[in-house]
Amino acid sequence: MSQYKMISIPEAQEAVLAVTPVLGPEEAPLGSAVGRILAQSVSARDSLPPFPASIKDGYAVVSSDGLGDYPVASESRPGALPDAPLQPGTVCYITTGAPVPAGADAVIQVEDTQKLPASDGRAAVRILKAAKPGQDIRPVGSDIQQGAEVLAAGERVGVAEVGILATVGATALPVVRRPVVAVLSTGDEVVEPSTAALGPGQIRDCNRSMLLAAAAAAGAGVVDLGIAGDTEGSVEGALQRALDAGADVLITSAPRTLTLSTPLILLQTVRPPPGGVSMGDKDLIKPLLARQGEIHFGRVRMKPGKPLTFATLPVAAGAGAPGQPAREKVLVFGLPGNPVSSFVCFNLVVLPALRKMSGWGAPLLRRVRVWTTSALKLDPERPEYHRATICYGRYPETAGAAAAGAVAAAVGGADACVWYAVSTGNQISSRLLSARSANALLEVPQASGALAAGTEVSALIIDDLGRMPVPGEVPVTEGFF
Amino acid sequence: MSQYKMISIPEAQEAVLAVTPVLGPEEAPLGSAVGRILAQSVSARDSLPPFPASIKDGYAVVSSDGLGDYPVASESRPGALPDAPLQPGTVCYITTGAPVPAGADAVIQVEDTQKLPASDGRAAVRILKAAKPGQDIRPVGSDIQQGAEVLAAGERVGVAEVGILATVGATALPVVRRPVVAVLSTGDEVVEPSTAALGPGQIRDCNRSMLLAAAAAAGAGVVDLGIAGDTEGSVEGALQRALDAGADVLITSAPRTLTLSTPLILLQTVRPPPGGVSMGDKDLIKPLLARQGEIHFGRVRMKPGKPLTFATLPVAAGAGAPGQPAREKVLVFGLPGNPVSSFVCFNLVVLPALRKMSGWGAPLLRRVRVWTTSALKLDPERPEYHRATICYGRYPETAGAAAAGAVAAAVGGADACVWYAVSTGNQISSRLLSARSANALLEVPQASGALAAGTEVSALIIDDLGRMPVPGEVPVTEGFF
Repeated sequence: MSQYKMISIPEAQEAVLAVTPVLGPEEAPLGSAVGRILAQSVSARDSLPPFPASIKDGYAVVSSDGLGDYPVASESRPGALPDAPLQPGTVCYITTGAPVPAGADAVIQVEDTQKLPASDGRAAVRILKAAKPGQDIRPVGSDIQQGAEVLAAGERVGVAEVGILATVGATALPVVRRPVVAVLSTGDEVVEPSTAALGPGQIRDCNRSMLLAAAAAAGAGVVDLGIAGDTEGSVEGALQRALDAGADVLITSAPRTLTLSTPLILLQTVRPPPGGVSMGDKDLIKPLLARQGEIHFGRVRMKPGKPLTFATLPVAAGAGAPGQPAREKVLVFGLPGNPVSSFVCFNLVVLPALRKMSGWGAPLLRRVRVWTTSALKLDPERPEYHRATICYGRYPETAGAAAAGAVAAAVGGADACVWYAVSTGNQISSRLLSARSANALLEVPQASGALAAGTEVSALIIDDLGRMPVPGEVPVTEGFF
Repeated sequence: MSQYKMISIPEAQEAVLAVTPVLGPEEAPLGSAVGRILAQSVSARDSLPPFPASIKDGYAVVSSDGLGDYPVASESRPGALPDAPLQPGTVCYITTGAPVPAGADAVIQVEDTQKLPASDGRAAVRILKAAKPGQDIRPVGSDIQQGAEVLAAGERVGVAEVGILATVGATALPVVRRPVVAVLSTGDEVVEPSTAALGPGQIRDCNRSMLLAAAAAAGAGVVDLGIAGDTEGSVEGALQRALDAGADVLITSAPRTLTLSTPLILLQTVRPPPGGVSMGDKDLIKPLLARQGEIHFGRVRMKPGKPLTFATLPVAAGAGAPGQPAREKVLVFGLPGNPVSSFVCFNLVVLPALRKMSGWGAPLLRRVRVWTTSALKLDPERPEYHRATICYGRYPETAGAAAAGAVAAAVGGADACVWYAVSTGNQISSRLLSARSANALLEVPQASGALAAGTEVSALIIDDLGRMPVPGEVPVTEGFF
């Protein structure tokens, strides 16, 4: 029996986030700031527009001049401005977006004017429609006032925000530092993925590449710690390399091709001796971890992924390479060896921690409700995070008449579009193909029997729904095209 | 009047995708393959598991031996395998995931055994429960057979797929090449975003940073062409630099802080002369483009973004730097100068082209239906892509009782969670803040008056919904926790 209390995933998330710091601020150039969170608000350096600007192509005028024929005394085009203020009794040719010259108080669009023959080499124009003061001029600061906050602390820099920041001249941004994540695999039998021919009993390391990719996709910097052998010294050495590399987070796993009861990572890196029947932990590493830091939990009631371990290690002042940002502690996640368990636990527990470190205000996975399209086998012992692909469209006929009827009754008709989930198939925890194309984890309750097709369940989003499958046409707003 | 026929957005998308090629294959290392599309299928180099593997900690046995006491003749642990086949009348200690030795045909879990005192220094064990042949053994290839396709051509490499590919030893992947996108801004009055103090009439270039960020976020390589002045020579020079850099796509815009009628880009880089009243194009660039290639469209009926231009230029054989992949043509997008128009047109027309080039099977934006939460002013002349933030939860009370009642009646109750949209506010096309935090474009029809709050409209997803706002708790599947 494990000495660790079995806790739920919400308890695990709470325990992790309670000790996860928001990292400190640093400066990032605008060109590489997409995905970063602002550590401070950004204000406008100047007003937008920075000058009174014309909304039309036409003529800047003194509105009190009224109708009549006027000489074109100057021009205002972007990049070619009038030298002197506009005098009453004259007009200034102006293009859209150009500055309205001093002295002018309105713009008359070209359609309300008539070009006259030039006299003395000077252009002239007839004003056909009188102007009101301010007409077709955007005042200084009508979009943004100088000094006004354009983006707040805590906001994410997305593509549109890059445009906003460029507009106000904010090219060096105060952003939250991104975490550095070190990833280690352990096991004497584990070999590099590039190994062409496997020796007896060897397996390729799939977890490390996957977890490095997952951390990078979450915006973290990554450190590849390679594969450590099954000795305390080997794992200790890797831990030291993680500290030296300035890691904020260490993720370890002992990759497996299969298992229903993966040993705890870091807590059982030395396996039971030959002929041994002890199912307890060989505590060669745990005393080290417990001496250096704190183990917060070691078992989580979930499927897949029960043996999920979380510890924190304090970092000595001055540790790490010169110039590295200060860290108080390293978060250590011992993920299950099964690749799917590892994938699911990363999304549920590690990713929220990385997001919080990076400055996200709401770091947990987004939850929505979707309709199942096949019966899902239930586990009487543990709630399951079932890998699925969710999409939007008419509920599929392949789910069966009973399911379709249940959904139609709930949503008000068989023609309605709904969010529904297609299971990725057999959910055995060693079968990484069950995570292929998954964009959601369905929250399937702990119970006996099966959940019928056409049931509404909650689902956690784990991939960009902007890439979800397109099962058919979704009706466009009536009258749009 | 423009010489270009006004077309709809679906027509524009069709015209663009019809001439957009899927780029050729190249090899990418596994470590940088996330987001890439496979150009060819990937097969398993060997079977998974590659050996008959134990599902339990216990003893590998000859099942016909039956109950009784047996000497532990050998052990099989990951990284420490038995040298010789198992002899009948003996057992082999085995750990989860370890290879089952030749001669053994079943595994008996440790719970169904009893350890006996060692005799002659040799461990022994009592088998308490007889084994069936094959029990607790995963046969070779039970997950994946050697040579079987694990991922198909056209599939996207996501985080889970990296794990799958590492498992089968696929570390150099055949992927579709990513497009190279060159971005140019034009305008004598346009200055770098880093400019601290703006001169008279100057504006900072917000479009280029934004479009470079958008192209990079779409997975493209990017080339920053800087700012070209308002002369044919300056723009021609930039076009040549795009070709030299191996660009597949050129995006140009003339950044504006405001305008309701932005001039066509590339077709009107020289502005009307002082006092001019001609509203036609100054065709200094168009003959060049028309001579070198083809202009497919020049106006699109949409708001914001009417003056959207698309052309293709053939690339001479051997053009570009040595070693660059062959290109047949460059796609040229002349985006509106308004930053928001530019942002919307990028998402609607440029992004699908980049996705198709990168190998996406369904490159258009994903469409879903959502409930409005405020009245939306309609434009009688053009359909509008209204920037909004969509999220999932209880329909907000702030939308008003009438809207809430309409939604509740449609979805079967006020407590139901729905997808709803919050407008980003004033949609004037110069107001880039209206794109801030937007994750969707609502398709709002061309009509007079306003669309009431509580109306269902179609929406196109433009940002990861995994980051959407969390307005409140979404009910978890009953019985899950």
